[in-house]
Amino acid sequence: MEKITIFDSTLRDGAQAEGISFSVEDKLKILETLDKLGIDVIEAGNPGSNPKDISFFDRIKDLPLTHAKLCAFGSTRRPGIAPADDANVQALLEAGTPIVAIFGKSWVFHVKKILKTTREENLSMIEDTISYLTSAGKTVYFDAEHFFDGYKDDPDYALSVLAAAERGGAKALVLCDTNGGTLPAEIQTIIEAVKTRVTADIGIHCHNDCGMAVANSVTAVEAGARQVQGTFLGFGERCGNANLSTIIPNLQLKRDYACIPETGMKKLTSSAIRVAEISNYALTGREPFVGRSAFAHKGGMHIDAVMKSPKSFEHIDPESVGNERRILMSEVSGRSTIINLIHEIDPTVRKKSEETTRVMDKIKELEYEGYQFEGAESSVKLLIRKELGKFKPFFTIADFKTIGEKPVDGRALSASAIVKVSVEGKEAVNAAEGDGPVNALDKALRTALEKFFPKIKELRLTDFKVRVIDQGATASKVRVLIESTDGEDIWTNVGVSTDVIEASLIALVDSIEYKLLIDMERQIKAYHLG
Amino acid sequence: MEKITIFDSTLRDGAQAEGISFSVEDKLKILETLDKLGIDVIEAGNPGSNPKDISFFDRIKDLPLTHAKLCAFGSTRRPGIAPADDANVQALLEAGTPIVAIFGKSWVFHVKKILKTTREENLSMIEDTISYLTSAGKTVYFDAEHFFDGYKDDPDYALSVLAAAERGGAKALVLCDTNGGTLPAEIQTIIEAVKTRVTADIGIHCHNDCGMAVANSVTAVEAGARQVQGTFLGFGERCGNANLSTIIPNLQLKRDYACIPETGMKKLTSSAIRVAEISNYALTGREPFVGRSAFAHKGGMHIDAVMKSPKSFEHIDPESVGNERRILMSEVSGRSTIINLIHEIDPTVRKKSEETTRVMDKIKELEYEGYQFEGAESSVKLLIRKELGKFKPFFTIADFKTIGEKPVDGRALSASAIVKVSVEGKEAVNAAEGDGPVNALDKALRTALEKFFPKIKELRLTDFKVRVIDQGATASKVRVLIESTDGEDIWTNVGVSTDVIEASLIALVDSIEYKLLIDMERQIKAYHLG
Repeated sequence: MEKITIFDSTLRDGAQAEGISFSVEDKLKILETLDKLGIDVIEAGNPGSNPKDISFFDRIKDLPLTHAKLCAFGSTRRPGIAPADDANVQALLEAGTPIVAIFGKSWVFHVKKILKTTREENLSMIEDTISYLTSAGKTVYFDAEHFFDGYKDDPDYALSVLAAAERGGAKALVLCDTNGGTLPAEIQTIIEAVKTRVTADIGIHCHNDCGMAVANSVTAVEAGARQVQGTFLGFGERCGNANLSTIIPNLQLKRDYACIPETGMKKLTSSAIRVAEISNYALTGREPFVGRSAFAHKGGMHIDAVMKSPKSFEHIDPESVGNERRILMSEVSGRSTIINLIHEIDPTVRKKSEETTRVMDKIKELEYEGYQFEGAESSVKLLIRKELGKFKPFFTIADFKTIGEKPVDGRALSASAIVKVSVEGKEAVNAAEGDGPVNALDKALRTALEKFFPKIKELRLTDFKVRVIDQGATASKVRVLIESTDGEDIWTNVGVSTDVIEASLIALVDSIEYKLLIDMERQIKAYHLG
Repeated sequence: MEKITIFDSTLRDGAQAEGISFSVEDKLKILETLDKLGIDVIEAGNPGSNPKDISFFDRIKDLPLTHAKLCAFGSTRRPGIAPADDANVQALLEAGTPIVAIFGKSWVFHVKKILKTTREENLSMIEDTISYLTSAGKTVYFDAEHFFDGYKDDPDYALSVLAAAERGGAKALVLCDTNGGTLPAEIQTIIEAVKTRVTADIGIHCHNDCGMAVANSVTAVEAGARQVQGTFLGFGERCGNANLSTIIPNLQLKRDYACIPETGMKKLTSSAIRVAEISNYALTGREPFVGRSAFAHKGGMHIDAVMKSPKSFEHIDPESVGNERRILMSEVSGRSTIINLIHEIDPTVRKKSEETTRVMDKIKELEYEGYQFEGAESSVKLLIRKELGKFKPFFTIADFKTIGEKPVDGRALSASAIVKVSVEGKEAVNAAEGDGPVNALDKALRTALEKFFPKIKELRLTDFKVRVIDQGATASKVRVLIESTDGEDIWTNVGVSTDVIEASLIALVDSIEYKLLIDMERQIKAYHLG
């Protein structure tokens, strides 16, 4: 297996995404996750343009990494200044990383209109800066910005830019599709042409403006590139960067290149969940390989066929990327789907036994009321436990009250909630204010329960979806889906009511019950293993 | 420009997506949107497997469409049965669409293990079914399921499947990457090989399990395919189908193929927003071409360069797909859109006058807060009146209170509201119980106002949508869209808040104000005409 260097820029290019903003703690956690996964190079910031990045590099200088090498990103020296006199170049040295990525212009249009310098000076800037940094002991990757646009406009000049970087001593020449406008066929032709003209490694750095970043990266490798740059979940400026969590399994599982260690491949899905959570980034679930829906089957014919043979509708084994098959509950899927979930709780129940019928009937009844269990296995698992008599609630809600009020004196709208919980005969009352009655109730309930179950503090609600399910306007039934995580698992619960507060509360209670249940299961497992 | 047939399966394959569930009204609205955009063929359901789809086809039989042709989807006859005796095939005839898409197996593994029939019978099933339907006057497209997996396994058999479909009279042979596991290079090689062996049109139908569905579809067209199947926003089973809103501009703007009319191209972004809204599907904003972030610039260097010349960091002109450039620090755009709405109220206002700026600023401020005025012109019209000083509220809400309660005695959850309104100095207090606090407030408010404005009785809320717009779980901001009618007009209003009650109330108040406003305008018009 030929080795491909995987270069992650989540902390640098990823931070350019709309809605993304990392704290120092976030960055450290992402660094750790990517390192453990087996990413080769982690670009951690631009110390020249961003003072916060300087202090971050200072902080991570002595961080023990198991696999990854750190990289600082910056531009060539400015026109007419020696590298030793350029503060940005100095900041790159001071970052103290073994690798430095330097970007320079390879499109004449940018040299003239944006940089406002000459073709010759641009070449000197690139060569000078790189040779200055290599002399100081750095491994330098050269990011040829807008390389494909530049090459299409003036191939000779674009190639002379790469030649300047090679003279400077660049270890890799990274061809960037900065505007994301290039299609795979062009990537292939241009890389094949470049390959005959350079001896340094070729890298690829794509953006997703045409929805082609993954295809372009894989095509580039097949045409000869040996380094792939991207961000782990694909986020970045505009439509984002090439998504490494998609590219890595494509190259390694489908094309036999070595990207990350075998053990890392099984952590791909959990790493994606973790990076998303740290970044407060909502996964859609449809992410190739690592998404929650990536191996979820809903259509009746598909479910039947997957039961007969998984490869009938799965292009790889979900376990090879640490993901799992999911059979979605819906009117179309029947008894054989449910029995698998029942067996997790009681392996003695048979497909045709009375318990199975009771569970099926309950699901149908709730679906008729507007519940939708696809994507809410944790609610189904609780339901099965209840129907099998294997559920003992950790707590009950004795009573509650929510108040929404626009006071006469013109102050802002306020919402508050009072809730009384009961745990093994002991009661606790708690109140909270919140952004709306649901939020107030959520806060009051969880604080009340934390006294009894301190691990509830780990629970975080990551998504809250409200769907109106029939057409009675404000008296409509609503279905609330709540997605929760404790950093180790993600699960979804569902509640239905004409009252959005009640629907939310049903889902919220299920989410907390599920958290307490898996904590108990984990303890039992640890006990048996220990 | 060579014509590519665009085939949308949002209503069929899209409905297989996790979390998607269409009502009949949703389907009709999507159909209308895609037709107006200029999509050639719309696959509207599977009448054989889904009884709800049968009644839907019945309902749309006489729907006036301006461009699109309707298609029903189904499988070949079952083994050992004549097409005339197969209920599914009959259901396809009864659907009454000019086009029928028939899927059949092209992978020997599926023929043997899933279908459990012989290679020969499978070929007969395909030929018989297609010739039966073409004899009945249908245009038949043949979906060769798992074609690429089948071809890689046994190319001769896969080609014999296509030959059977051609003998049956299929107008197009649609090669399906059903499991989504095929990479672009394979697509190209296989389609080039197929092209030398068939005379019917070649179509392509891709799934996104490798993140390659868009690249595979474009590659297929470049290799000779002349029909592209996908779903408009890319949703579908597992990781989804090929995203037509990405493929269409790639082919038409970058490769000079004709997909949809020029006028449709400018509606691409608004159509994407509309289909997402109808489907209650959260766009991420990063969608190529049509996403809110697709032309949003955040990095300082990028913003500087885009100000000098947009093409420095934009691969196409955003207006060519009806999208817009967004500078995330200081917004500068949209003026010409708004001036038309302003002119409805005051024709003397100029595009550059101070009033226009004020309206623009207010809209941007609200959009920043999470409002979205797409499809909520009545809220924009009220906003313009307010900013131009041409709005006098018909009523104000002096104060209100909502109470949600689960009483100790175990009775059902109850919700009630008290509201005090003020109309020209006169106050009225009213209370109501309801299904949840929003419904209680709605009832209390409208009953209180009916005393002053009897015509409010004509007002009926026809739709109520809640969309969570950021990721704070139960403290998330929600956007509420309320659609209202008085039997003469339909209008939509929007409200945003972290509190679902407040968001609903904002939209509700706007809806009632708008009703009172148009009633007044109708009176004035009747007076002038009379």
